[in-house]
Amino acid sequence: MYQDHLIIDGLQYCNWNRAYFEQLKESGVTAIHATLVYHETARETLTRFAEWNLLFEQNPDLIMPVMSMSDVVKAKEEGKVGVFFGAQNCSPLDDEIGMVEVMRKQGLLIMQLTYNNQSLLATGCYEKNDSGITRFGKQVIEEMNRVGMVIDMSHSAERSTLETIDLSSRPICISHANPSSAHAALRNKSDTVIRALAERGGLLGFSLYPFHLPDGSDCTLERFCSLIADTAEMVGIDRLAIGSDLCLNQPQSVLEWMRNGRWSKSLDFGEGSASNSGWPAALPWFPDSSGMKNIFKGLRDKGFSETETAKILGGNWIEFLDAGLKPAE
Amino acid sequence: MYQDHLIIDGLQYCNWNRAYFEQLKESGVTAIHATLVYHETARETLTRFAEWNLLFEQNPDLIMPVMSMSDVVKAKEEGKVGVFFGAQNCSPLDDEIGMVEVMRKQGLLIMQLTYNNQSLLATGCYEKNDSGITRFGKQVIEEMNRVGMVIDMSHSAERSTLETIDLSSRPICISHANPSSAHAALRNKSDTVIRALAERGGLLGFSLYPFHLPDGSDCTLERFCSLIADTAEMVGIDRLAIGSDLCLNQPQSVLEWMRNGRWSKSLDFGEGSASNSGWPAALPWFPDSSGMKNIFKGLRDKGFSETETAKILGGNWIEFLDAGLKPAE
Repeated sequence: MYQDHLIIDGLQYCNWNRAYFEQLKESGVTAIHATLVYHETARETLTRFAEWNLLFEQNPDLIMPVMSMSDVVKAKEEGKVGVFFGAQNCSPLDDEIGMVEVMRKQGLLIMQLTYNNQSLLATGCYEKNDSGITRFGKQVIEEMNRVGMVIDMSHSAERSTLETIDLSSRPICISHANPSSAHAALRNKSDTVIRALAERGGLLGFSLYPFHLPDGSDCTLERFCSLIADTAEMVGIDRLAIGSDLCLNQPQSVLEWMRNGRWSKSLDFGEGSASNSGWPAALPWFPDSSGMKNIFKGLRDKGFSETETAKILGGNWIEFLDAGLKPAE
Repeated sequence: MYQDHLIIDGLQYCNWNRAYFEQLKESGVTAIHATLVYHETARETLTRFAEWNLLFEQNPDLIMPVMSMSDVVKAKEEGKVGVFFGAQNCSPLDDEIGMVEVMRKQGLLIMQLTYNNQSLLATGCYEKNDSGITRFGKQVIEEMNRVGMVIDMSHSAERSTLETIDLSSRPICISHANPSSAHAALRNKSDTVIRALAERGGLLGFSLYPFHLPDGSDCTLERFCSLIADTAEMVGIDRLAIGSDLCLNQPQSVLEWMRNGRWSKSLDFGEGSASNSGWPAALPWFPDSSGMKNIFKGLRDKGFSETETAKILGGNWIEFLDAGLKPAE
């Protein structure tokens, strides 16, 4: 049964408030990886932490902070939703290696080395040329490995991602992306990347963001579950999970912040276009976190056992993060 | 005569204080391009400006700020040394396109797109791979062109430099570097770059930093002047100038800030090495700004006319900056 398991959504960025937390608890999701920041600097990241501290203080009956996987078990026992934090860019570091440990201690458990553009560490998937990991990037990978901050390459370009898998002494994740073999998109990942990731013990979270799916917002649950089944055939089920990329109740301004940050005077439409610049329509079978239940059923229908399904819906994230968040020995 | 001309040193980063300004005035240099920051953020850059405002307030008999080339003429008339500012990295922008105009208004006339490492805009000369100008970099080049902030590629890698020469609608400079044909060093420039720079009306400032010279601190004045003569033969004298890279009275900590910023936990030795980690010994004929007089004489001895020599020692910088600092029409 769905409710017997630890259910993890490996990427959300919703308009966080009590009404949303009520919906989240109702959905049966045990814990979420919440995007804390997109392009915020170190100082601005501290404000985002402070805002969350207030949310935890004001909603103790619904949510609780997660610093390790034992907190997820605790959240399940107490009927709350656990929240752990990640950054979608390396901007919380500014230009400073020492910020890795500082941010980790504050509760930044996961960090992408880039968003869509070139960062100080690596190249994003929207750049024309990918030069791989920079001098600073090598130091940051080593430091993240040391303190137990998980590397996420969801938005990074191919060469940078392959180099990171190789340079990192610990498995990395791609928290929210799909195989480009199913849908060609700059944000999706080649079989080469998925294989390399899996061989080194990394994790791929399947995305429910329509721009990452075949047929976009018309992608069926069956088609989505086939995608998982095909990938499981390629790399096994232990390396697969969900990172829905759910962005609920966010205004257009948030989409523009994600896409444009402060780097562009003219609007950049990211995965959209001038004629399709808004949020994509939600999948009918994944209107919000309650869709996780539909995926559970869809995977069972596809032939996955309950144990296998529970791994994909949460168990694999738990195992991966339990190891990845420990400091190096 | 040397003292009849406007003498410009196109790059200095000394320990700025009254004693140094007295020496500078005594040397007969009319104006200097002073490095304001290496890796300082936007906020930190404002503090550097404030520190200089105080220096101008406290030393009005010796120095004055330069916002356009008419200020250099005024400095000469008043017997003061003009000071104009540049950044050796794009860190004053943080990640924000709007900072280009803000910093230009504050008095940042020149900016390098990178120091030695990958920046958000382009690749530095110490990186293994050079992916050229990034998406943000293209926007910044366009904006610098618009507001009349001069692009400097002294520390950038070859492909990034060639792309910038091509992308920029206005000539760019390499304020302090030498031809790598005379001395192979990551910081020096290939004939391909020097030719492309000159063809588009750009300016090359010859460096007196021993690591950039054949024979290092033993390079003779005659050898240095030959270097200029050889390059003049290649691209003409109008595109050549001086950017001494003079770093006087600076402690080791400044050298470490230049080389390491905040990006490295272990010491990076830049152009030095573990066994040679300090400031290089000064050239005997360029112990401080008074060495400009020796170069004047050296170039005359090499066969340059007084008019030609005066162009290389200052006139070319004046003409280049006079055009480059005007906002686009």
